Amino acid sequence: MDKITQETRFLIQNAKNAEKTLSRADGKSRAAALYAIADRLIADQDEIFRENRRDLDAAREGGMRASLLDRLALNESRLSGMAQGARKVAALPDPLGRGERWTHENGMEIQRIRVPLGVLGIIYEARPNVTADAAVLCLKSGNAVILRGGKEALYSNLAITRSIRAALKETGLPEDCVQLIDSADRAYTTALITIEDGLDAAIPRGGRELIRFIKTSARVPVIETGAGNCHVYVHHDADPELALKVLVNAKTSRPSVCNAAEHLLVHQKIAPAFLPAAQKALSDAGVELRGCARTRAILPGIKEATDADFDTEYNDLILSIKVVDSLQDAAEHINRHGTRHSEAILTKSIDAGRAFSDLVDAACVYINASTRFTDGEEFGFGAEIGISTQKLHARGPMGLNELTSIKYLITGSGQTR
Amino acid sequence: MDKITQETRFLIQNAKNAEKTLSRADGKSRAAALYAIADRLIADQDEIFRENRRDLDAAREGGMRASLLDRLALNESRLSGMAQGARKVAALPDPLGRGERWTHENGMEIQRIRVPLGVLGIIYEARPNVTADAAVLCLKSGNAVILRGGKEALYSNLAITRSIRAALKETGLPEDCVQLIDSADRAYTTALITIEDGLDAAIPRGGRELIRFIKTSARVPVIETGAGNCHVYVHHDADPELALKVLVNAKTSRPSVCNAAEHLLVHQKIAPAFLPAAQKALSDAGVELRGCARTRAILPGIKEATDADFDTEYNDLILSIKVVDSLQDAAEHINRHGTRHSEAILTKSIDAGRAFSDLVDAACVYINASTRFTDGEEFGFGAEIGISTQKLHARGPMGLNELTSIKYLITGSGQTR
Repeated sequence: MDKITQETRFLIQNAKNAEKTLSRADGKSRAAALYAIADRLIADQDEIFRENRRDLDAAREGGMRASLLDRLALNESRLSGMAQGARKVAALPDPLGRGERWTHENGMEIQRIRVPLGVLGIIYEARPNVTADAAVLCLKSGNAVILRGGKEALYSNLAITRSIRAALKETGLPEDCVQLIDSADRAYTTALITIEDGLDAAIPRGGRELIRFIKTSARVPVIETGAGNCHVYVHHDADPELALKVLVNAKTSRPSVCNAAEHLLVHQKIAPAFLPAAQKALSDAGVELRGCARTRAILPGIKEATDADFDTEYNDLILSIKVVDSLQDAAEHINRHGTRHSEAILTKSIDAGRAFSDLVDAACVYINASTRFTDGEEFGFGAEIGISTQKLHARGPMGLNELTSIKYLITGSGQTR
Repeated sequence: MDKITQETRFLIQNAKNAEKTLSRADGKSRAAALYAIADRLIADQDEIFRENRRDLDAAREGGMRASLLDRLALNESRLSGMAQGARKVAALPDPLGRGERWTHENGMEIQRIRVPLGVLGIIYEARPNVTADAAVLCLKSGNAVILRGGKEALYSNLAITRSIRAALKETGLPEDCVQLIDSADRAYTTALITIEDGLDAAIPRGGRELIRFIKTSARVPVIETGAGNCHVYVHHDADPELALKVLVNAKTSRPSVCNAAEHLLVHQKIAPAFLPAAQKALSDAGVELRGCARTRAILPGIKEATDADFDTEYNDLILSIKVVDSLQDAAEHINRHGTRHSEAILTKSIDAGRAFSDLVDAACVYINASTRFTDGEEFGFGAEIGISTQKLHARGPMGLNELTSIKYLITGSGQTR
């Protein structure tokens, strides 16, 4: 066994041991740990900012794009957001414990009990807030977690993890409930997701390439989250003003996140009127446009959008545009190029909205609203670990329940079959 | 691309096309198809029995064990059971369609809609009844299915699939909702579970080797089912008579199925009294006993149980026995050797029962009842596609709901974030 596999096995074993204690801790102790984490993050803010600056300096030197630098950067408001998030999750109802019970006709009692998944591996990009957010949700749901953040955020993540582990120790829970892989070597990720009887689930949070890598390499169950190649489709009968408002919001309100729109599909009937107005509004908002041939016939100045563009989640102020002949063509384009995350139609017709919803294969389908609402808090789940883009286990925003499994407890008095 | 991959891609494409129609068929049409399947299976029984005899003759010649021959054999009562099963599933509530809805404070309506998983691959052993049972559950839940049964049952499965497809055609649903891989070559299984963007989920139903193969080879999501290396643990305070009754039932009432007990763990305090009585009762029922050293000190005549024995799901009238020092040791043994399926404790103590339930990691934990109850119908789910032994998506008996996913439909009037 090579050194990296050996070290990763060791992390997994630590996590399994810690999880035994954590899964039997009551809801109160788990909540207390989260309040302690919130306090500790604020108390340790100088160190966290110092380590974050180390990451930011190196990233800037390495030529990181502005939208990615934005995701990497921590400041007082973001750190207090992380602490506030921990407090909010602490106050949510305990997702674990006894559930429904019913009685078999032979007198046995059958009861469903919510249990943690076990040991989770969360693999994410250079967004240090995910370190705290993910750890907090895992702890609340009784899961031990091994975190693997983007290497550009390593020092920030190490500092945040130190604070979290210190808070766990303070409140009497095993520190190894939360561990971070502290090397930038990608071989650790591979080891983490291939060691048999290791993780109970791997949850990649990030772009298409990361998810593809995890999906094709993993030997443990995977919950895909975070790839959002989202579309806004403007049907021929859309209210242009309303469509413009939703489009600009979906594209520009936070371009670096997964529920931001990346592509615009426009019905050919409305394209000649709608596209020039869209160009004006989007250019004013600093968005670079790229278009198919039919789009460029209407907006001659813009760059060509290739097939590769339509497969790209820009996470940036870029939008590619395609003119389509019908709602069916729009849905087909989305099913071919999308990541099954969030897709919006703008239309005045209830039937067109329903048809779009039936045809499009995605976690969230919006009729006349912005894709930016795909979010656990917006949906009322209190918090989220990510947006699942697969159909198994969880789909769409994943809250605490989606980090649990069940177990049946059957209590009898000697029943046989 | 080799021929096998090409053929398998073709099956998957057929299934995807068929699924588009199936997923939009209403609950009534799906139910009508199931009633037609039931009638057709009975109408075609001569052909089905003839093809089953071909399989049975070949299997007997090949030296198949009695318990496996039993699983392969069809007769009037089993075929009528399959038809009855189809009718029963037809009458169950439709698992698809509109679910909970709620309103965002900005006025958007959010609705959860139950949708099919899509295209499922079911890989199973030489049990022809699974062909009908699995197809029926997939159809009811709007999923297209590609079946891959054990090669020893190929002719039986082909005959059953012909009946099912004829019934689909009769009722106006695409025949390709149900397809069977009609070659014994294992390369088709590999292709089925590795083609990217192919299956929405692979569900292996069978023993540990089959599941291991699927788990380590698949590039699509897997729901593990069916491996049942189940234990009965007799605690020191158990009522010996009640323990004996449950043990004999768990071992002998149907030894070939996954919820049958394979191993007996006995607390050392009760072993000297319990084991001789167990030996008598089990030998009378034709069970071969194997034991650890401490067991053989009490029952000198029996064979040695090795570590390999404790990892074996016999599916036969064999039971291995281990004497343990404590409930904790019993739980540790189970967590090391079990398949997280069904585990039973016999005890008079509520605390011991709870401790066992907390310590043992399994889908179903029984206190004073037989492991044989782990079954969708016994649990009140109306039907089951298998027993999930993993924690993700579904755990324990999987009914119709576990073959569905969700989709959120958000309807607004121009809301932005």
